[in-house]
Amino acid sequence: MYLEKIQKANDIKNLTEEELFELADEIRDFLIEKISKTGGHLASNLGVVELTMAMHLNFQLPEDKMIWDVGHQSYTHKLLTGRREGFDDLRKYGGMSGFPKRKESDCDAFDTGHSSTSISAGLGYVRARDILEENYHVLSVIGDGSLTGGMAYEALNNAATLKTNFIIVLNDNNMSISENVGGMSHYLDGLRTAEAYTDLKNAVEMAIGSFPVGGEKLVRHIKRTKSSIKQLFVPGMFFEDMGIKYLGPVDGHNIKALNRAFKEAKRVKGPVLLHVLTKKGKGYFPAEENPARFHGTGPFDVATGEPLSSGGKDTYTDVFSKVMTDLGRRDEKLVAITAAMEDGTGLAEFHKRYPKRFFDVGIAEGHAVTFAAGLAAAGMHPVFAVYSSFLQRGYDQMIHDVCLQKLPVTFAVDRAGLVGSDGETHQGLFDLSYLSEIPNMTVMSPKNKWELADMVRFAVELGAPAAVRYPRGTAYDGFKEYRKPIEYGKSEAVFEEEDIVLFSVGHMFETAVKVREVLKETGYSCSLVNARFVKPIDEAMIELAAKEHRLLVTIEENVCSGGYGETVLEFVHRKRLDVRVLPVALPDDYIEHGSVDVLRREVMLDADSIATRIITEYISQ
Amino acid sequence: MYLEKIQKANDIKNLTEEELFELADEIRDFLIEKISKTGGHLASNLGVVELTMAMHLNFQLPEDKMIWDVGHQSYTHKLLTGRREGFDDLRKYGGMSGFPKRKESDCDAFDTGHSSTSISAGLGYVRARDILEENYHVLSVIGDGSLTGGMAYEALNNAATLKTNFIIVLNDNNMSISENVGGMSHYLDGLRTAEAYTDLKNAVEMAIGSFPVGGEKLVRHIKRTKSSIKQLFVPGMFFEDMGIKYLGPVDGHNIKALNRAFKEAKRVKGPVLLHVLTKKGKGYFPAEENPARFHGTGPFDVATGEPLSSGGKDTYTDVFSKVMTDLGRRDEKLVAITAAMEDGTGLAEFHKRYPKRFFDVGIAEGHAVTFAAGLAAAGMHPVFAVYSSFLQRGYDQMIHDVCLQKLPVTFAVDRAGLVGSDGETHQGLFDLSYLSEIPNMTVMSPKNKWELADMVRFAVELGAPAAVRYPRGTAYDGFKEYRKPIEYGKSEAVFEEEDIVLFSVGHMFETAVKVREVLKETGYSCSLVNARFVKPIDEAMIELAAKEHRLLVTIEENVCSGGYGETVLEFVHRKRLDVRVLPVALPDDYIEHGSVDVLRREVMLDADSIATRIITEYISQ
Repeated sequence: MYLEKIQKANDIKNLTEEELFELADEIRDFLIEKISKTGGHLASNLGVVELTMAMHLNFQLPEDKMIWDVGHQSYTHKLLTGRREGFDDLRKYGGMSGFPKRKESDCDAFDTGHSSTSISAGLGYVRARDILEENYHVLSVIGDGSLTGGMAYEALNNAATLKTNFIIVLNDNNMSISENVGGMSHYLDGLRTAEAYTDLKNAVEMAIGSFPVGGEKLVRHIKRTKSSIKQLFVPGMFFEDMGIKYLGPVDGHNIKALNRAFKEAKRVKGPVLLHVLTKKGKGYFPAEENPARFHGTGPFDVATGEPLSSGGKDTYTDVFSKVMTDLGRRDEKLVAITAAMEDGTGLAEFHKRYPKRFFDVGIAEGHAVTFAAGLAAAGMHPVFAVYSSFLQRGYDQMIHDVCLQKLPVTFAVDRAGLVGSDGETHQGLFDLSYLSEIPNMTVMSPKNKWELADMVRFAVELGAPAAVRYPRGTAYDGFKEYRKPIEYGKSEAVFEEEDIVLFSVGHMFETAVKVREVLKETGYSCSLVNARFVKPIDEAMIELAAKEHRLLVTIEENVCSGGYGETVLEFVHRKRLDVRVLPVALPDDYIEHGSVDVLRREVMLDADSIATRIITEYISQ
Repeated sequence: MYLEKIQKANDIKNLTEEELFELADEIRDFLIEKISKTGGHLASNLGVVELTMAMHLNFQLPEDKMIWDVGHQSYTHKLLTGRREGFDDLRKYGGMSGFPKRKESDCDAFDTGHSSTSISAGLGYVRARDILEENYHVLSVIGDGSLTGGMAYEALNNAATLKTNFIIVLNDNNMSISENVGGMSHYLDGLRTAEAYTDLKNAVEMAIGSFPVGGEKLVRHIKRTKSSIKQLFVPGMFFEDMGIKYLGPVDGHNIKALNRAFKEAKRVKGPVLLHVLTKKGKGYFPAEENPARFHGTGPFDVATGEPLSSGGKDTYTDVFSKVMTDLGRRDEKLVAITAAMEDGTGLAEFHKRYPKRFFDVGIAEGHAVTFAAGLAAAGMHPVFAVYSSFLQRGYDQMIHDVCLQKLPVTFAVDRAGLVGSDGETHQGLFDLSYLSEIPNMTVMSPKNKWELADMVRFAVELGAPAAVRYPRGTAYDGFKEYRKPIEYGKSEAVFEEEDIVLFSVGHMFETAVKVREVLKETGYSCSLVNARFVKPIDEAMIELAAKEHRLLVTIEENVCSGGYGETVLEFVHRKRLDVRVLPVALPDDYIEHGSVDVLRREVMLDADSIATRIITEYISQ
């Protein structure tokens, strides 16, 4: 086992060339075995084993800075920097994160999680290094999928003016999570088949040497142009025209070739883009065949690749998927948009049935929102399905392009609240706040699977901007009988008693039902209202509830600041309603990875903790 | 006067070629005269007179859709669509907006204001048109400055896959507001001098026709490559390689050439980028010479170009400018970042003195924030100076890249609160909310010019993420004597009396002083606290104030949701403090253009309105 010889950063440099080949195999076996038990990101990590090894062979840690775009492909990097033991508790509460973390290792130069940030962060390091006259290398490793994000282009545009070394490694597997889209992907296609260009270049050089008529004039004109003959014929012209040296493409599974390329890249005085071709899932047949399925996976059977726990109940995403397919049939103006998350957001079936009305815009949430606004202005009914934490990228566009013009765009905000093992960067902690503060926006959240379907339909038919937010995971299927039609701004009283009233937001209804049971067991009488609308709040119901109860509790899986509880409290205080308000919400803090159940207990958002808080509040009145 | 013959859209088509030349002159004279009185955007509008005329000649309104990126260059478009009368009240309250507005005319296809949105919105129209099988043209007019924004690239990347007509007009004046930056600008430089390419192409074609040896091989190889010989030699290869047809460059002041180009552009079955070269300020010498000064201008003397009212007191931006220059001298790790707003944010002097520590990243706020995070991770003290409404573009990056890692980035948030004549898209209504809801962020706002200086210094030295927000316009210079050192999380009691206590946020202190005077004249005793910190709030001071007063009033120029008032109220309620809270804030609505004083009265945030509200609240207790 050569892997056992790697106890800390730079240990890999002690291995022989032969041993490195063995090590690559061992790393793959290790990752497949561990992830088959814990779950995690597999395909992307199998794709960059040799690339990561070559980086560690050619650079010195922690002095040199490696920044992993998105960061879910950093497992080999973690292995090579002394974190092998961590894989037993990968993505578990208190265990190792699935993403780079500066607090986890000084070899992690920058925390990542969202896409397309690595060139910006790397450029920050480069500029600082140059100002402080320090001497280290900076590498930003970015996938071709992440290149569909505009931030990466903004950063490239800036990096182009550098006069000192900055190595951008383009990890090109021709995939984001699902297949890549758009013009840049097409452009890279051309580079991938660059052999033809190289041959062409040779032919041209030969021909120029033996020109009869016109040849001299050609050479003169070539000299007059700003671009050299080299730039006209080598691949990567766009990058070179911007001012970024292009190297490659290089076989990303050939350590020797990678070593040569990195040696060359280090010599460049300026920004250099090293184009590396890799294969997602490399070395594990089921993942090579179906990289999207093995992007992020739960535990699976190594022999077959089959998931160990097969589905079970519908998730909220499944429910959304069905209602979209149904709506697509009934409403010919319905169009669906995803930002490179066709499977994750449940739009695959819609895509299959209505290909002309489905748009995958790439990892480009800002564009997605304004594109939706344009579609709406032209008479369509667009639905943008997106994860809560990624929609943060479209905040300005919601304010500036959708809500200012009151355009009927529906936001299907998935992964709202705690998401679990992906951790800090992926938790949906803020959406109720950032959505509610926007004028003209309507914000809803469903108590169970049927209400999600009803709310999506309601939102699409509303004719105004609206968001429906729902969490990751199994859809609650209780209280099917409570299915009063959605009425604008109206909540739903489910249990009517006295003393205490709970107003739960969305999926916290399930928790609120348990809270109520605990309270009743302890001897407290308790009403329960499903808020349904977070904006606008149901003022009439709150006034009524205030009259009949001594304590009004709001429960939401969102930060307190700008959330439902503060809005309700402001109303209660303004109207001088005679009721005490207890807003239960997430703490003002980031929340690490771990199972959602564990995290809820940790942040006191489980039924027992909430009940205890309520009783304390109630008896201290 | 041919301009008088233009009463409505499409009237321009009745003019002869000769008359069009006259019209262009008249439009320029009209714009210069009107804007010299009202103020407004001048240089950009003078640059697109012929381009706009050519668009109106070649397309039919309102059937065809014209989308103006940013939109401050839409004045000629407004003139040609029957809005000549509107220029007397341009940007005044109740008058015509300085930006396209769908509610103003059906010839305005999409509201704009922020940069880089036009291709996304245009693509929305195109996709809708094709799905609905309608038949109109869509034109997105985007400046080369707006092309530095990543959203434009995200949209181009998507547009590239179109099979139907979509005309992107690249209005290339080689400027954003200040000079352009980065690789794309360099790339466009190459296209601007495209004559050399054209000659080269001719020479190559000649030469190929007469190849002796190697020639055949060359032609064979050319055929084998994906790109055609045309694509290898014409300018705009990057766009063409993405899949976007490139036309140009065309002289943007030559109507005949523009007519030919638009006819060609309409014929393309797919996305086409028409590269138009224009000159900012064209036809008015002072603006040609100094386009940045005439980007947005107040009233000026037409003969000399000199501003009619010359400065006067320092603005908050001036004060920020001075403190940055001073800090730059004392702290060698201080670096300053702007997103194409060097003059507007007051960083020009810093740039001049410390060029190596100044970075203009282009119109790229998302990148700017993460770039700052990278600089901070590498040991620098970055300050990102940015307008409140534009920082909305960096919301995710503040959450994900700065505050998650607690990196010491300072946000100098200018144009916070009401900005006046730029209107809805530029008002800074949300920053206190979107900043306060982020964990690990500190949020401050100064009462006067001296406190702004103190807070910027404090923020830079804090060693953690911090924002200082301040408004557009003259810096308040009252209460110089109240200059207690900034202490973390502490507010400042300025007047201590009883009954009523005002907690004012930032520049609302000036208003609060007046409110207090009105209250005292009416017979009410009133304390005044300058909040200083919006996050964290000064809990000790609030507890103290609650004991000694019956009514606690918060005053902020920000929406209520997620703002200072809600946070204070939540604390007061949680601590069961015996005081009534009245949060005074902006309404849950967009706010149109107009002078700030008029707007404050309109939204009841002037001293009289606030005093009246307070008295009503007080006596109803």
